[in-house]
Amino acid sequence: MDVILLTHTPNPDSLVAAAARICYRDVTAGELLRGEEENLSRRLIADLFTSGHMSTFEHVSFTFGVDGLSRVASHQLVRHRMASFSQQSQRYVKMSADPGAVIIPPSVSKNPEALSIFTETVRQSQEAYAELCALGIPKEDARFILPHGHSTRLVMTMNARELHHFFSLRLCRRAQWEIHELARRMLALCREVAPVLFDMAGPSCIFGECTESRNCGEPYKDMEDLLA
Amino acid sequence: MDVILLTHTPNPDSLVAAAARICYRDVTAGELLRGEEENLSRRLIADLFTSGHMSTFEHVSFTFGVDGLSRVASHQLVRHRMASFSQQSQRYVKMSADPGAVIIPPSVSKNPEALSIFTETVRQSQEAYAELCALGIPKEDARFILPHGHSTRLVMTMNARELHHFFSLRLCRRAQWEIHELARRMLALCREVAPVLFDMAGPSCIFGECTESRNCGEPYKDMEDLLA
Amino acid sequence: MDVILLTHTPNPDSLVAAAARICYRDVTAGELLRGEEENLSRRLIADLFTSGHMSTFEHVSFTFGVDGLSRVASHQLVRHRMASFSQQSQRYVKMSADPGAVIIPPSVSKNPEALSIFTETVRQSQEAYAELCALGIPKEDARFILPHGHSTRLVMTMNARELHHFFSLRLCRRAQWEIHELARRMLALCREVAPVLFDMAGPSCIFGECTESRNCGEPYKDMEDLLA
Amino acid sequence: MDVILLTHTPNPDSLVAAAARICYRDVTAGELLRGEEENLSRRLIADLFTSGHMSTFEHVSFTFGVDGLSRVASHQLVRHRMASFSQQSQRYVKMSADPGAVIIPPSVSKNPEALSIFTETVRQSQEAYAELCALGIPKEDARFILPHGHSTRLVMTMNARELHHFFSLRLCRRAQWEIHELARRMLALCREVAPVLFDMAGPSCIFGECTESRNCGEPYKDMEDLLA
Repeated sequence: MDVILLTHTPNPDSLVAAAARICYRDVTAGELLRGEEENLSRRLIADLFTSGHMSTFEHVSFTFGVDGLSRVASHQLVRHRMASFSQQSQRYVKMSADPGAVIIPPSVSKNPEALSIFTETVRQSQEAYAELCALGIPKEDARFILPHGHSTRLVMTMNARELHHFFSLRLCRRAQWEIHELARRMLALCREVAPVLFDMAGPSCIFGECTESRNCGEPYKDMEDLLA
Repeated sequence: MDVILLTHTPNPDSLVAAAARICYRDVTAGELLRGEEENLSRRLIADLFTSGHMSTFEHVSFTFGVDGLSRVASHQLVRHRMASFSQQSQRYVKMSADPGAVIIPPSVSKNPEALSIFTETVRQSQEAYAELCALGIPKEDARFILPHGHSTRLVMTMNARELHHFFSLRLCRRAQWEIHELARRMLALCREVAPVLFDMAGPSCIFGECTESRNCGEPYKDMEDLLA
Repeated sequence: MDVILLTHTPNPDSLVAAAARICYRDVTAGELLRGEEENLSRRLIADLFTSGHMSTFEHVSFTFGVDGLSRVASHQLVRHRMASFSQQSQRYVKMSADPGAVIIPPSVSKNPEALSIFTETVRQSQEAYAELCALGIPKEDARFILPHGHSTRLVMTMNARELHHFFSLRLCRRAQWEIHELARRMLALCREVAPVLFDMAGPSCIFGECTESRNCGEPYKDMEDLLA
Repeated sequence: MDVILLTHTPNPDSLVAAAARICYRDVTAGELLRGEEENLSRRLIADLFTSGHMSTFEHVSFTFGVDGLSRVASHQLVRHRMASFSQQSQRYVKMSADPGAVIIPPSVSKNPEALSIFTETVRQSQEAYAELCALGIPKEDARFILPHGHSTRLVMTMNARELHHFFSLRLCRRAQWEIHELARRMLALCREVAPVLFDMAGPSCIFGECTESRNCGEPYKDMEDLLA
């Protein structure tokens, strides 16, 4: 899986702090972005976060390019409705016959017998896809026979509020492994450009207590443990 | 594919007309639902629709149960963000080994050679899934090998404004055939319980002119043609 | 303030439980609504709620008619974006000259001196509005001089998930008094028709601990205390 | 009214074109932002726009600072739900006693008799507000007596898809004058930094035909006429 941060709103930490100040003080929009001390932002943003007043986090957004995610995972990913997606179309783009075009789950790759069944079936499916296309079946119908684990590409934009929500759900150990890995990389990228906004982010266990009804039993110790 | 209307907001036509009246007249909420003539609703709703003032259409929603839709189509369906979905999980529910559990596109079923390749590959994939499960691979990972055309079940709720948007896009002849068929059945069901709200609904061709950049060349003649 | 429940999705408790079952079991949409025991719904819904898996709550919605809310409160109310509003227009409807058309905050009405200043200023503003209209100023411009506390009417629809979010924020004692009162009446109405879905609803204090950064110091004891 | 563009997603035109290419071509996310010719973007974006495939426009957003808008207009503005707002709070910030703190509609300012009534009533209302505060009435209650035309400040973020929707509605001559003026300034600012994305934007009349049921009779001739 390749995940890159294509672009983001400039100066994300400062902009969120500025937007919060307009709510509570007598300051003009023109004065908003001037003369802000970094420490003030940090304190203010931490306070907004812990009290759940996160609407100001919506002013900054982050756009990611993702390659090599399975369509199993992308089906789940696009359920996040406070986000924008542009995904490679299987109606218009012919799917690769490369064996690497289908994602192999770690549970399969570390079991030689399972791996052999998996790769052989991938081969058969890709062959069937090619034969169906050769018979004149439209790409959009031939893809019905491709494995659900076939990889896809997409561009995705989320604002910082939705990202926090995404990280709280998808960095839980009980999340699907692929979307968990995607979330881990996204968080690392976000922390490079918006360290204050994403200083605290992740599943509930990292802040104290698990809120899931069925606990995984292995809470993350801290951010380092989460991003390892 | 089975599509049923599980439930809907009662009296959809009247409620939308009532909500519109509160915007433009001096009427209390208590008076809203009384003494409305059907003809007035019809004229009022047609006027809201043609001038694009459709926010009042949001007050009524429709909940559908859908069985036998492919995960190809459901992946596309859940991209509609102004909607609520509860979908059968492939992480928790074991997938059926029934050959009918994978949707066969019409272009495949009417081509004997293609059909034979398709069904044989489905059989191999389902066998591989069963073997992977027997080897202790978790269901959520074994499903990577199932065909993308595997059928799914879901409950979906949309309000009448989003339904109109959905019908305008998905009843276009260029839409994917399965989501087109789903939309056709949903519209027929909506028209039974909210004939005024859905008197006019569908792709742009039915109202005069196609707005797609690549035209299909076969515009629908009228509602009867569309729902046939 | 008058708040009535105009309509709602029929059988809300059962529908949410049915939608949740399709996610985790091998059940068809047709079987969904049959033979459900009330106890199962209760346990299932409580489990969904406490673990934060609330997407199934979106399938049921509730439509309220509200009269006699100030435009101060409605300005805040329409900030809830997961909701649909139809509000009486001050561009098209002439505002009443009745002194009761402006909402008087309790802090004003119980202070005789403040009340006298308030009502006299209301009188002057309403007079100015009438004079401006008489001079040919359009209603949409004359309203600039009316007090912000002028009452309005609206129809509002929210689904049960958003209602829970709304109740958690607006039933906090630190919420604006008018929107708090609106929320209190809405919750009482919801509990009559969907007792299971709204068995647990309200600010964080009612479930244990306040999550606000500035605590009011008077947590609600229980639901009875909240709805009193 | 002061409107400034506080910030925006960098290189908006290129990013939208890049996101569109991933849908239809076999290109990796890493290749997305390289070597794009400006002409290609222009043709591609125009095609997306005219065929209504505008989801890729969501990847870029624009953040505005607005001062001196009436709360009449801001009440209407925050009805746009695909947007993020941070607005100066009248609960926490004491309102100015400056006569200029209330917006005077042009229809009033050009009628000397109306203007005299208006400014005198503003004076009385501001005096009443100050007296109520002096009597210990909380700011959040005292503001009920201030004119609805009182000015406010806000920070607002919209993505390019919602901006197009906003411009199509609010640049219609029948829109409220203040929100029309806001939209006009926003469009001019957007065109400076994203000339291709906003090459075509505005009310339906500018593209050919009015779609409103009650026509204003004075269609805009072209973009120059609209932005004049």
